[in-house]
This record gives sequence, C-alpha cells and structure tokens, in this order.
Amino acid sequence: MRTSTPAQGRRGERSGNGRTAQALAAPFDIERYLKERAQLVEQELARLLPGAQGPGAVLLDAMRYSLLAGGKRLRPILVLAACEAVGGAYEEALSLACALEMIHTYSLIHDDLPCMDDDDLRRGKPTNHKVYGEAIATLAGDGLLTDAFLVLARAGHAATPPALLLEIIAEVAQAAGSGGMVLGQAIDILCEGRPAGLPMLELMHAHKTGALFLAAIRAGARFGGASEPQISALSEYGRAVGLAFQVVDDILDVEASTEQMGKRTGKDDAHSKVTYPSLIGVEKSRLFARDLRDRALRALTPFDERARPLRELATFVVERSL
Amino acid sequence: MRTSTPAQGRRGERSGNGRTAQALAAPFDIERYLKERAQLVEQELARLLPGAQGPGAVLLDAMRYSLLAGGKRLRPILVLAACEAVGGAYEEALSLACALEMIHTYSLIHDDLPCMDDDDLRRGKPTNHKVYGEAIATLAGDGLLTDAFLVLARAGHAATPPALLLEIIAEVAQAAGSGGMVLGQAIDILCEGRPAGLPMLELMHAHKTGALFLAAIRAGARFGGASEPQISALSEYGRAVGLAFQVVDDILDVEASTEQMGKRTGKDDAHSKVTYPSLIGVEKSRLFARDLRDRALRALTPFDERARPLRELATFVVERSL
Repeated sequence: MRTSTPAQGRRGERSGNGRTAQALAAPFDIERYLKERAQLVEQELARLLPGAQGPGAVLLDAMRYSLLAGGKRLRPILVLAACEAVGGAYEEALSLACALEMIHTYSLIHDDLPCMDDDDLRRGKPTNHKVYGEAIATLAGDGLLTDAFLVLARAGHAATPPALLLEIIAEVAQAAGSGGMVLGQAIDILCEGRPAGLPMLELMHAHKTGALFLAAIRAGARFGGASEPQISALSEYGRAVGLAFQVVDDILDVEASTEQMGKRTGKDDAHSKVTYPSLIGVEKSRLFARDLRDRALRALTPFDERARPLRELATFVVERSL
Repeated sequence: MRTSTPAQGRRGERSGNGRTAQALAAPFDIERYLKERAQLVEQELARLLPGAQGPGAVLLDAMRYSLLAGGKRLRPILVLAACEAVGGAYEEALSLACALEMIHTYSLIHDDLPCMDDDDLRRGKPTNHKVYGEAIATLAGDGLLTDAFLVLARAGHAATPPALLLEIIAEVAQAAGSGGMVLGQAIDILCEGRPAGLPMLELMHAHKTGALFLAAIRAGARFGGASEPQISALSEYGRAVGLAFQVVDDILDVEASTEQMGKRTGKDDAHSKVTYPSLIGVEKSRLFARDLRDRALRALTPFDERARPLRELATFVVERSL
C-alpha cells in the first residue's frame, strides 16, 4: 500500500542496471521464506483472536484450537506475496491475509464434521468436533467465518480507499459463498459414490479449493495497488496454482502416509471419491501438475523480481509431492 | 439515503404547522404495514438469491427453502424502519435489510441441526436438514452467511460513502460473530441442563437475539444518514425491543401451541432450558416485557412521526403474546 507504482515501471528501472537478472539468479530458500511468513501470519492470527474468559471461553478455545494448529498457511502467504509482487508493502496486508486463513479454517472444521467428510485427524491433531463436540465445532466454524468479515472490514490502512476494500470483501465473499467454496463442497458431497468425469472434477476443484486460492491472490494484489492487467495476469497464475495444488493433494492422498500428511490419507479411495489419479493415473496427474506450474510461471512473465516468491511458490506447490 | 437531513430538523419544520400531532393521532395498521414490508423484503430476497441449474442446484434450493419460508421478517423490517426514522429512503436499504435476514436464516438452520437444538419444525415447515440432510443444511447455512456479506458489500447506492458501508459491515459481523450471536448460541448450548440465573439468561439473550436486532437497527439508521445522538437513542430502543422479543418468545413457548407458532413449542421445558417464565414466572415476565416496551418508546422521544413504525413495532413485539 505504501508504494502503488505498477511493477512494470519498477522493472524497467531496475533491468537497466542488471539487478533483475542478478536477483533472479540469487538462491531463494523457499522453505525458510514459508516458515518466516507463516510465523508472521500466526502472530497476527493470535493477536486478532485473543482467548476469552467467562461463559464463551470454550467457543474461543475451539476457534483458536483449529486456527492456531499450524498448517502451511498457503492462502495468507499468497495474499502477502501477491501484494508484494505488485509493489505493495506486505506487512500492511497481514490482517487481510489472516481473514483468508480464518475462512479456510472454518471450511476445514465444517468439512471434517461427521455429517460431511467425517474426519478425525487434521494438521496432525484430532479434528475440532472430536475435541469440542459437534455443536461447538459447528459454532467455531460459524464464528471464524463471521469474524473473518470483521477483520476484512477493518483491514484497511490510512491510505486504503474504502471502495477498494469493499470490492475485496465482495470478491472474497463471492469466492467463499454459494457460488464458490461452499458450492464446491456441496458438489463434492452430492457426487460421492456417483461416477463423475474430468469436467465435474475440475468444476468441483475450481470451486472447492480454486476459488479461495484465486481470491487470496486477487485480494492481495488489489490491496497492493495492482493495475487491472496485473490482476488479470495474477488471476491466470492463481487458477493454475490452485488447480495444481489440488491435483498434488490427490496424488499425496494416494502416496503419502497419514503421518506425513497430518490427516487421514487414502480416504478418497475409501470414500470412492473421484480424483485425478483415479481418472487419469498418477503419472499423468504429475505431468498435469507440472504443466499447470509452467502455466502459472508464464503468467508471471510481466512481473519483476518482486514476484520471485510467487514463482517459487508455484514450484513448491507442485514439487512437494514429486 | 436520498434525504440525510437529521430527523430533528424535519421535525422542527413540521411541528410548526401541527402535522406531527395530526400524524401521530392517525390510525396505523401495523398488521398491514408488516405484511407490506415483509412482501418487499421477500421479493428482494428472491431476486438476490435466484435458483440455479446444474450440479449446485440442490444447495441453492436448500438456501431458498429456508430463506423464502415466510417468517415475520422483523430484522429486515427494523432495518427499513430505522432508516426511515432518521429521514432515509427505506427502498434504498432493501439489500441491506435482506443481508440481515440471510444472517438470521443461516442461524436458524444451524440452530435446528441435530447436534444443536435438534428441531424438526420451523416456520410451519420441516427444518432444513429434515428435507435436505445435515450436510447440505450445514452448507446452506454457510452459504447464506457468506453470501450475506456479498450483499452487504454491494448494498451501497451512488451516494453511499464506502467508509460508511465498511462500518456497517464491521458492526454486523461483530454482532453476528464470536462476540455476538454465535457466542449467544454457544452459551445457550453450554448452559443446557445446568442451573443458570437471571444474569446468565440476560447475557445469553443479549448475544443470541439482541445483538442482531441491535445491529439491524443501527445499520438501518447509519445507512439512512443518522447522527451519532440518533444512533445512540436507537441503540437504546434496539436493546429494549430485542430483549422484549426474547422474553415474549419465552412466554409463547410456554403458552402457545405448536400450530400457532409454526415451530415446536414447550421445548424449552423439555430441554430444561432456563427461561424468563421458569425464573420469574409468566406474570412477572409479562410485566418485564411491557416495561421494556416503555423503555423502547421513551428512547424514541426525540424522533418525529417518521419513527411511528418503530413505535408501533415495539408495541407489536410485546402485545403479540399478551
């Protein structure tokens, strides 16, 4: 937000003295980057959702239990990285990033409920309803989702145009609601046990995982002062990375152990869920994920070295399984 | 929003020619008023949430099933009436009003779930999960809650300051979230079967029902261009009416039949829930409700005849049981 100069302008200046090529060649420790950013996000999450005393303490405990249970924090990190890629100050997008993680966490709590996917393990710990019971788990999800919009409405800084923040709220709500993530989960549940082809699988993923990934990237970019062409390019990146993430998740469900993943694996097969490996096989799924990574990287061509984290993230998302 | 002149100014002008006294003396058909406003709200709800084709049709069906199932529409009507009371054009607050009803409806769907209050009848019809199953009912609630924020973010008109809308979104999210309605429901569930006194009962109601009532009134007033003293007076009105509504609901649960209420009555007793009648008896509960009505009416003293609907509503809320 401090700098709203389009990336192109900066890139022009810097490539003149060769700094871009130099920066691109320098080593980038993605593991360390992810760890540092995740820590920043977790500090802010803990600040935004302090514990409570009194009769409602259990509700807040349940919300914090799932919110502060670790996880890769990919969505908030994408918010920060997209903000940075267009020249914004990522520190100022921290609340916005946390709102996306709160929405993601609510969706995990509700998806794990016995009436949904009925999971007992998440991020290496018992699921929310296993610890707090179904009623409080449902309410913890409701609380996180609602509070996320409070955080969003207050995510602006002195220089944030209120109209821009309204646009971000609308986009995030659309991506998370009945035309986005909630629809994806409904399709997933309605399709369980029924034969479904590739088009239905892509539709489900585009909504269930893709929509919030895309919203995270677009929100971060808008917040950082992105131009419309930049938002367009980053959306292409976001769609590709979001789908790649899901394809890899499907592969990991087949190949990784429950211990490695921190959640029950092999469950897609047990629930006879349609996945990329079940439709096109593991090898073709890998090739598809790599193709998506390449598509994501091509979309970033107009950006300078400040998009380096986004580039590294695309590769990380795909390589974590391969 | 068309007229943002404070009510006081208008009142001064009008009382000069005696129109205020005349208007106050004229008969006011509250039943007809409520019916007409409810119809307006329902038309807008149906417009905001159109049916869908394709794989997600069931989700939208489930959302529309509960959203368009009738009901008193008190919260959206309070939004419109508060907007009007401060000189705003209520037609322009219709989307805002509907967002509050969407949030209220999601809370009913989730509260009725087997893991919560386990109800099978609502607004005279089978509850959402009885028709669509628990998974889709949970998602229908999630969808309504999320979509409500999309509606809120887009509720502004050309003349609405975006910063005002952000403030409204923050207030509504706070009232509905883990510090408001969700907390109230958590307290309700955690207290079930345990002895609780009047302070705990008031705390629970202030959050479970009161917070959203209050948010509806404050949001409508802000949207209509209210001054801070007006918002303060209307908040006093809102707190009193919200609590009166709940006290009367408790009385009705004891006295009315399931058929009259369109939901299972006598359930508070069956669940050994603490209520006003169980703590202070039916007669004292009635006196308390009337006292709250009087408090609400006193808070409206500074307002002119444009607050007439709010005055009539306070009486209606209390008299519906007496």
